Amino acid sequence: MSDTSDSAVRTYIRQHRDAFLGDLVEWLRIPSVSAQPEHAEDVRRSADWLAARLRETGFPVAEVWPTAGAPAVFAEWPSDDPGAPTVLVYGHHDVQPAALADGWYSDPFEPRLEGGRLYARGAADDKGQVFFHTLGVRAHLAATGRTAPAVHLKLLIEGEEESGSPHFRTLVEEQAHRLAADAVIVSDTGMWSETTPTVCTGMRGLVDCEIALYGPGQDIHSGSFGGAVPNPATVAARLAGALHDADERVAVPGFYDGVVPIGAAERELFAELPFDEAEWLGTAKSSGTLGEAGYTTLERIWARPTAEVNGIGGGYQGAGGKTIIPSSALLKLTFRLVAGQDPDAVEVAVSRWVAGWVPDGIRYDLTFAASTRPCLTPLDHPALQSVVRAMGKAFDGQKIRFTREGGSGPAADLQDVLKAPVLFLGISVPSDGWHAPNEKVEIDLLLKGVETAAHLWEDLGGALR
Amino acid sequence: MSDTSDSAVRTYIRQHRDAFLGDLVEWLRIPSVSAQPEHAEDVRRSADWLAARLRETGFPVAEVWPTAGAPAVFAEWPSDDPGAPTVLVYGHHDVQPAALADGWYSDPFEPRLEGGRLYARGAADDKGQVFFHTLGVRAHLAATGRTAPAVHLKLLIEGEEESGSPHFRTLVEEQAHRLAADAVIVSDTGMWSETTPTVCTGMRGLVDCEIALYGPGQDIHSGSFGGAVPNPATVAARLAGALHDADERVAVPGFYDGVVPIGAAERELFAELPFDEAEWLGTAKSSGTLGEAGYTTLERIWARPTAEVNGIGGGYQGAGGKTIIPSSALLKLTFRLVAGQDPDAVEVAVSRWVAGWVPDGIRYDLTFAASTRPCLTPLDHPALQSVVRAMGKAFDGQKIRFTREGGSGPAADLQDVLKAPVLFLGISVPSDGWHAPNEKVEIDLLLKGVETAAHLWEDLGGALR
Repeated sequence: MSDTSDSAVRTYIRQHRDAFLGDLVEWLRIPSVSAQPEHAEDVRRSADWLAARLRETGFPVAEVWPTAGAPAVFAEWPSDDPGAPTVLVYGHHDVQPAALADGWYSDPFEPRLEGGRLYARGAADDKGQVFFHTLGVRAHLAATGRTAPAVHLKLLIEGEEESGSPHFRTLVEEQAHRLAADAVIVSDTGMWSETTPTVCTGMRGLVDCEIALYGPGQDIHSGSFGGAVPNPATVAARLAGALHDADERVAVPGFYDGVVPIGAAERELFAELPFDEAEWLGTAKSSGTLGEAGYTTLERIWARPTAEVNGIGGGYQGAGGKTIIPSSALLKLTFRLVAGQDPDAVEVAVSRWVAGWVPDGIRYDLTFAASTRPCLTPLDHPALQSVVRAMGKAFDGQKIRFTREGGSGPAADLQDVLKAPVLFLGISVPSDGWHAPNEKVEIDLLLKGVETAAHLWEDLGGALR
Repeated sequence: MSDTSDSAVRTYIRQHRDAFLGDLVEWLRIPSVSAQPEHAEDVRRSADWLAARLRETGFPVAEVWPTAGAPAVFAEWPSDDPGAPTVLVYGHHDVQPAALADGWYSDPFEPRLEGGRLYARGAADDKGQVFFHTLGVRAHLAATGRTAPAVHLKLLIEGEEESGSPHFRTLVEEQAHRLAADAVIVSDTGMWSETTPTVCTGMRGLVDCEIALYGPGQDIHSGSFGGAVPNPATVAARLAGALHDADERVAVPGFYDGVVPIGAAERELFAELPFDEAEWLGTAKSSGTLGEAGYTTLERIWARPTAEVNGIGGGYQGAGGKTIIPSSALLKLTFRLVAGQDPDAVEVAVSRWVAGWVPDGIRYDLTFAASTRPCLTPLDHPALQSVVRAMGKAFDGQKIRFTREGGSGPAADLQDVLKAPVLFLGISVPSDGWHAPNEKVEIDLLLKGVETAAHLWEDLGGALR
């Protein structure tokens, strides 16, 4: 392992901070919303922008990879040591939908620097966390005097993560030879808090479905017909209302099949975290907790599978009243999965469950978006320990603790196809407001991300040999 | 009773048909949507228009009566026989919301005459059925040679019926001395079909509520927080999903208190009606029936109380997915009441039921619009028999049968305050599409309404003495 100077890394980062932020702002201006067809061209523009920027960073290879949906970006920077291990960094360049009307204080696609924070859709999820690798690898080279990274470095930045990564697995399978790696670093998660740096050891999986229910051919008078024909809004409500039992367990039969229970050791580690429920509720902008009986809040969001109503709609939602039986209703549900659950089996269970609730006289379309597998990395994996050491340097020797991530990413597909361990390196904090109005990233933490990345390749180059 | 010539009535109607329809079209062009604040001025304009038209018709008194909401129209035409009974006609000049986007084939406020039908919002509910009284009273005078009607005729045409008549009872109480009547004729219902004329004997009451549910202060990430905080869309769904039990009975405790059961005689009369469920489903634009166990479809919509979801909304309803816990959700429910149920008691029961479903961490606002009482007139009432005779003349001697009305109107308030029996005279048919896109009225039936009204005053003048 060559000698990496902490102060040289910091000096380099300080010198390039403003240019780095300026470039990130330019990228954040591109509204790469993968869920909205009208932004398809923006997602393509975002990919082109990133590929060009990666070439400028020094990656000899930086390509836009088309998919059946939105394009991904692949980049590669081989080590000059042929025996060096290969590491693949994963992130995404698409973002959640965002509109001023949702409660943003300013245009979500006109980034705003204020009070040490950068506000924009994608600032934390995930453009900021992808982008810290660009300055990170430059700082690694500058501080070590290398002309190429200490590992064969690859980047795969997809464009459909916020839409459930429908074409990601196919892409990874088709390009498996070019993506081959000894370890995968996922930079699409967060850490405990500004003051408690953590490494995440797993992500939940996701099954995402939409149920469109059709009743009368048009809205009909609820006085004339009410009580005698089925109402699709009522059926949507019955489905959503029956999602959970009285213990807030998911009531879809078969849903829990295969779930790996959380072990006593990890429960103890979670319990040691400085969890302040009142503060957490502040971040969740919520005034009470509610979840599966027998589990703590952290266990519920990290280690237990859940079901959530993301959207429901039917009938008249305007001012005043309208005494109708609506002609249609819509229900958007997501299920979060944990290790041991198979998304395909959950889809089958959900399909059976929906069919059992829909009465004669209601037609329905049940569609699943692409699912995401859950994944989990053992706490004692040597590469995980590398990440912990690099992060420890960036955080001035603070103890690095462990969390899991309640959200979902296609990390498990990379693990499946590439047969490589998946590690998580993220610096976002819960208050960053992922998927919410006024998403932001803390600039100090963003630079800690740069610094961790700058230290990581040297350490990992040794750990993975 | 003076001599009324059927053919004189018909001749007069034929001569004035086109002018009558032209005037109605003019009125239908005014979008008097009481539920939408942006149409408040249109509702006022509708009242002014009607008052002016009633004066032209010959009513010596025609006034716009302001209320705390939308204005009503009152008109009076005394008989020249001081001993004649007084009859009050009730209807409404406001209409349901309507927009092209809801599925109208043409502008709902640009009336379209096609195939013997007049298409427009309000054509049947209720402007057309109010308006047939204008030509009706003129035909009555023309055919009998009278210069004033055979009864002291009063009209009260309110402007907030489609908004639950929030100020109607107050208005009736305040103006009880001017509204005093020996009978009330409500022209805001329908009949069985084009070929089976019927008289309605009762209307269901209405309790209308909106439940706004508030969870997180903004939409939050369902991966990061899902399964640990209450979701207002889920709570809205749980409420709506718990509205009915497995027998499709309303599951709100206490809801059925006081319900007058439907008698065996009326069940038999209903069963004699030429009810074709397949045809009825066609009118309901539905492909299956669903309702309270143990009752027929007609009994369910006419004689049993029900609960209906008119609207539900929360979270993301656009294209694609958005993995959020929404910050709020909305539920619009209406309950139809039958004789014996007290709207105030139902509101108390609903309030208790809602409170029992809302968990800690969810705040809610439950608001009730003004309620409407149920009402029912005995089948053997002499004034009801008058209506049957007048209608029999208009329908060429056909047997007039009995129905009830599943919808609601403020008829019971008139009955309560004025201590007068309430009779129903309506010529609308189920296919008219009340509250639905492409509402229409059959012009032939509209003219039968004119004719019935033309015969009614003479007969009723005798029957009520």
